[in-house]
Amino acid sequence: MNVEKIIELLKNNELKELHEYLITQNSVDIAEMMSDLDDNHLAVVYRLLEKEQAASVFSYLESEERNRLIKIFNNSEIVKVINELYADDAVDFLSGMPANLVTQLLDKVDADVRKDINNLLQYKDDTAGSIMTVEFIEFTENMSVKQALDKIKRVGIDSETVYTCYVVDNRKLIGIVSAKNLMLSDYETLIKDIMKTEYVFAHTSDDKEDIAKKLQKYDLIALPVLDEEGCIVGIVTFDDAIDVLTKEMTEDMQKMAAMTANDKPYLATSVWEHAKNRVLWLLILMFSATITGSIISQYEHAFEIMPILVSFIPMLMDTGGNCGSQSSTLIIRGLATDEIKFSDYFKIVFKEFRISMIVSLALAFANGLRILLINKDVKLAIVVSLSIVATVMIAKLVGCTLPMAAKKIKLDPAIMAAPMITTIVDTFAIIIYFSIASHMFHL
Amino acid sequence: MNVEKIIELLKNNELKELHEYLITQNSVDIAEMMSDLDDNHLAVVYRLLEKEQAASVFSYLESEERNRLIKIFNNSEIVKVINELYADDAVDFLSGMPANLVTQLLDKVDADVRKDINNLLQYKDDTAGSIMTVEFIEFTENMSVKQALDKIKRVGIDSETVYTCYVVDNRKLIGIVSAKNLMLSDYETLIKDIMKTEYVFAHTSDDKEDIAKKLQKYDLIALPVLDEEGCIVGIVTFDDAIDVLTKEMTEDMQKMAAMTANDKPYLATSVWEHAKNRVLWLLILMFSATITGSIISQYEHAFEIMPILVSFIPMLMDTGGNCGSQSSTLIIRGLATDEIKFSDYFKIVFKEFRISMIVSLALAFANGLRILLINKDVKLAIVVSLSIVATVMIAKLVGCTLPMAAKKIKLDPAIMAAPMITTIVDTFAIIIYFSIASHMFHL
Repeated sequence: MNVEKIIELLKNNELKELHEYLITQNSVDIAEMMSDLDDNHLAVVYRLLEKEQAASVFSYLESEERNRLIKIFNNSEIVKVINELYADDAVDFLSGMPANLVTQLLDKVDADVRKDINNLLQYKDDTAGSIMTVEFIEFTENMSVKQALDKIKRVGIDSETVYTCYVVDNRKLIGIVSAKNLMLSDYETLIKDIMKTEYVFAHTSDDKEDIAKKLQKYDLIALPVLDEEGCIVGIVTFDDAIDVLTKEMTEDMQKMAAMTANDKPYLATSVWEHAKNRVLWLLILMFSATITGSIISQYEHAFEIMPILVSFIPMLMDTGGNCGSQSSTLIIRGLATDEIKFSDYFKIVFKEFRISMIVSLALAFANGLRILLINKDVKLAIVVSLSIVATVMIAKLVGCTLPMAAKKIKLDPAIMAAPMITTIVDTFAIIIYFSIASHMFHL
Repeated sequence: MNVEKIIELLKNNELKELHEYLITQNSVDIAEMMSDLDDNHLAVVYRLLEKEQAASVFSYLESEERNRLIKIFNNSEIVKVINELYADDAVDFLSGMPANLVTQLLDKVDADVRKDINNLLQYKDDTAGSIMTVEFIEFTENMSVKQALDKIKRVGIDSETVYTCYVVDNRKLIGIVSAKNLMLSDYETLIKDIMKTEYVFAHTSDDKEDIAKKLQKYDLIALPVLDEEGCIVGIVTFDDAIDVLTKEMTEDMQKMAAMTANDKPYLATSVWEHAKNRVLWLLILMFSATITGSIISQYEHAFEIMPILVSFIPMLMDTGGNCGSQSSTLIIRGLATDEIKFSDYFKIVFKEFRISMIVSLALAFANGLRILLINKDVKLAIVVSLSIVATVMIAKLVGCTLPMAAKKIKLDPAIMAAPMITTIVDTFAIIIYFSIASHMFHL
């Protein structure tokens, strides 16, 4: 879309043309464009949008732009916005507001909207209930396809998705019908004859990530969410599923880099928040690393006699850490995508063992050769090469074991990634290295 | 679904009941279940499936099960399978086969199927063309809604998705119509009056990850793919987009852990492949780490006089590495999700600078206190604390700079993650530490 054109029209106050242009545009693009506008242009553009488009644009606005709009709007205008939003978007919007304002606003919105919103507000943050939409289309089994299509015509306009419709017998879900089936069947056909009674569903309390994975696994556009009684209370749509999967992935990466997970964009997060998210793990890891340090001091006599030994410490520590985090990364990701189960543990350990055989020999050989050429010291070459082999072996074992152990005791495997693994493997590497060295050189 | 029941029915050879049961089941579940069957049960179950269901099940089978089936089937049976598959699934299947067999089979499949397959086979692996479906529904602008619905009834059954239909004027795309619009409009309405002429689209040569992100950004179920002339040649559907996004995330993680990206499941990858994917980066990083080592040797005199200095090396190296990889992880992810642009560079550097001020002071204070209490050496505490501050500062700077630099020179930012950053930061840490130390202690 053409931002210059919009600014131009705003400057010349040609609102009719602007309106004409905006209705042809995609809500996502309009929302994106609005972040470039100053406060009163922002309000002008928003007020120019048609009711439905306005709601959709609002749902795509960044929280910063939303707050700018809210500052300009009076409460009755805000209430109008909320009335137009889909319940789940409204909840998403309200959850970013001070509680007292929320209650103020909710008192003024339409009764049915308030009911939907209050229902949604009760679900915990990471559950299917918290990401579901309460707008969906219900049929009864004795409706004809014609009646069904007419119902869609009547209520469809308000539904976020009409492509899967739900057949209920007093609120209990008994089957689903896809819009495709409706379009492909004759008008006289009865819903009960085309509805599928085997379908994938979720419960309000299910973990939202599991639900997202279900939608992905079964290539579903939407999936019904049932309460304890088996009554349908909402649906989760594919677009929300994609967002959940991407968010979870980002949070996993943050945990794997020893940070507290945070789903706010990098630039929108304050310096203090960033520092808060990072410093705790850094402190923990820093103090754990001092263990390795104190072990080194126990070998002071060794490197007082042979200072050259110290110069291989970084190489051993880094190699150990890298080997360990390679394994842990694959395992953590495998667990996250349900590709690896706990029952695979021994299969995995055996695999990692054979892999580390190959890898460690390659590294040991390359490094031993280097030492022979540069330091011309066979014994030293042997010491370092042996240390590499042992370190890599242990690193891979630790790297594949800890994430699975974490999973087993219901911890997030993602915390058993590079930083943690490195710190642990370092200690092993130092012990192995100096004990081999002191033995070989009789230090 | 009930696997025991299926095995039971297979054992007792109650194929009619088995067939009855299978048609009610979801293709994804059937495909999953088939991996538990032995070869001839596998073939029996597959031959029991209805034509369409069989094609769908086959598209969900793991390559191992596919190959087991192919071994049992004769060529004419395989050809039947290919004829039933959607062109993109067929290509996906054939791409895993020896070229000579592919040509053999393609000679035997129906002419139109062969044409579609050959068209798809020409697109590069990472392009929109390689993941698009060639089955979609075309209208002309003067069709009525009634005619359109009738066309869907006629051809819809063969289309992977019918929810977005495409309006063409001799193969050139001029608009799109959603099934929702069709269902909500009166039968006499003309397509040209309800079609949207502003729509999101892709070109066959576009990067498939960008297309997937587009589908996510605009919450699209499908998106049209155009050739150079603006003719529609296929569509990319949301389910393929989700899979592309998850695969790309996994590959990013692998690269960030210093491995060659590999989209095969962990357990399905051979020991040799695993070793191959890991050893190259390990070698590179190992030799880079020896630079740090050789720098240490230049300070031998320092720790010959003060061996205690050596014991702080692991803590400094790990802390520097962790700080650097925290920053690089956030930047890499931000770049991957288009949340960070190169133009933000200075904003980011300034932010990271302020963050590292806070973080480094906290770490330096904690550590200095520890040394005062344990080693009772003020000078040592100052040396180590100063080194921490400087190391953290540099680590954060390196951590946010390298990924963006990589992006700028068209390298994958993901390789500038923990392992690489750690190795680089280690060198700085050692230099800073020993120069401060030798200066303070006049070594």
